Amino acid sequence: MLKCGGDVSADDKLVGVIGGMGPEATVDFMSSVLANTPATTDQDHIRMLVAHDPVIPSRQSAIRGEGENPGPVMAAIAAKLEQSGADFIVMPCNLAHAWQDDIVAAITIPFVSIIDVSVSSALQRSGPDSPVGLMTTPGCFAAGLYQQALAEVARPVIQQTPDELGEAMQWVGRIKAGDKSEEVVSGLRALADALIARGARVLIAACTEFPLVLNESMFDVAFVSSTDELAKLTVASARAERDD
Amino acid sequence: MLKCGGDVSADDKLVGVIGGMGPEATVDFMSSVLANTPATTDQDHIRMLVAHDPVIPSRQSAIRGEGENPGPVMAAIAAKLEQSGADFIVMPCNLAHAWQDDIVAAITIPFVSIIDVSVSSALQRSGPDSPVGLMTTPGCFAAGLYQQALAEVARPVIQQTPDELGEAMQWVGRIKAGDKSEEVVSGLRALADALIARGARVLIAACTEFPLVLNESMFDVAFVSSTDELAKLTVASARAERDD
Repeated sequence: MLKCGGDVSADDKLVGVIGGMGPEATVDFMSSVLANTPATTDQDHIRMLVAHDPVIPSRQSAIRGEGENPGPVMAAIAAKLEQSGADFIVMPCNLAHAWQDDIVAAITIPFVSIIDVSVSSALQRSGPDSPVGLMTTPGCFAAGLYQQALAEVARPVIQQTPDELGEAMQWVGRIKAGDKSEEVVSGLRALADALIARGARVLIAACTEFPLVLNESMFDVAFVSSTDELAKLTVASARAERDD
Repeated sequence: MLKCGGDVSADDKLVGVIGGMGPEATVDFMSSVLANTPATTDQDHIRMLVAHDPVIPSRQSAIRGEGENPGPVMAAIAAKLEQSGADFIVMPCNLAHAWQDDIVAAITIPFVSIIDVSVSSALQRSGPDSPVGLMTTPGCFAAGLYQQALAEVARPVIQQTPDELGEAMQWVGRIKAGDKSEEVVSGLRALADALIARGARVLIAACTEFPLVLNESMFDVAFVSSTDELAKLTVASARAERDD
């Protein structure tokens, strides 16, 4: 049933957000949700319950086999969000999806993957067989999340070298410390340009810190912001019933 | 006990945020919390549970005696945040504090007022007896929250005229619809300048939409952002035990 005007928002689903990885990426995700919601009043916006939990153990360390396993912490947060009424769960952090199985095992509601929607967008925004430039961090690369998803659709991938991944991580560290200076912007931009120079025809920004300093206007090829793709799908999923 | 380094954040309090009034003001509040937190890694940041609930009934309408009473909705959200482990509650919306009594009655944890901290900042940032320019919306003005707090400390107040309040509300409506154009900025700025021209020596931006387009660099007098003041107190309150 199509419902328009008035207090239709009560029909929307409640979005549960596992946030804080990193903190600014979560705020950026929420901004993107607002920007991608057609709205003229507060009441036009979707409801979110955001567990902004930056103390979740380091994902980069865990992938290297160091430090505490963050999976059980994420799973506990997801379960709490479900108990609080969330209808589905999103997580604006790419690498954290390496623990998606832990999360899914702890909930009975859907989990909406940032990996799947970003890959889907990259496929839609590039010609068949166009190589995808995978711009990410050492942990997310090691987890293989994007490589696996792109292999399943037999799409060629232009990957970063170990040196490039290490450099990307240094810039991400600077961003997490609040530094979005021109040096950081141009450093990350050069890493993206290197993928284009090696044949990438679409870029996936597979770390939610990258879109804090990079945007599509900087490149000649499509630039898929994993943050924005997850935000758009979040709005659409929250409103699925409204638009029936 | 002073605790430094390592996983000290687990000692921080969990902040419960009644959000979505409006949506962008809540995101701006969260940004301000991050900006006001000394941090170099994700784990240095404080934990927040944000009920981003833009469907809370219109506060401006309710103050006029129209539409649904938002008090019980806010109280229910606050109670749920406490049940979910929040150690104290904040609400980045000035007018919503007209229903503070409903909220406080529903919880056993502290409620940190945006009104009190903004008034306190205005007093600290201006000479004794300096007139305070109260820049707000018709609903917040009618609720008398700031006038009462300033009367208690016998501080003179430069108030907006009914026409100015009406105009402020029109600009706020434009901001809530996503319009932060130069026209909106200069319109609101002119309203602030009018208060200064009538003798204000410090301005309180008593609506969390105002700091989305105005900032202190625009004025010759101190400009108290209610959003930033609440954010700073939120960080300090979350870390109170850490700094013992």
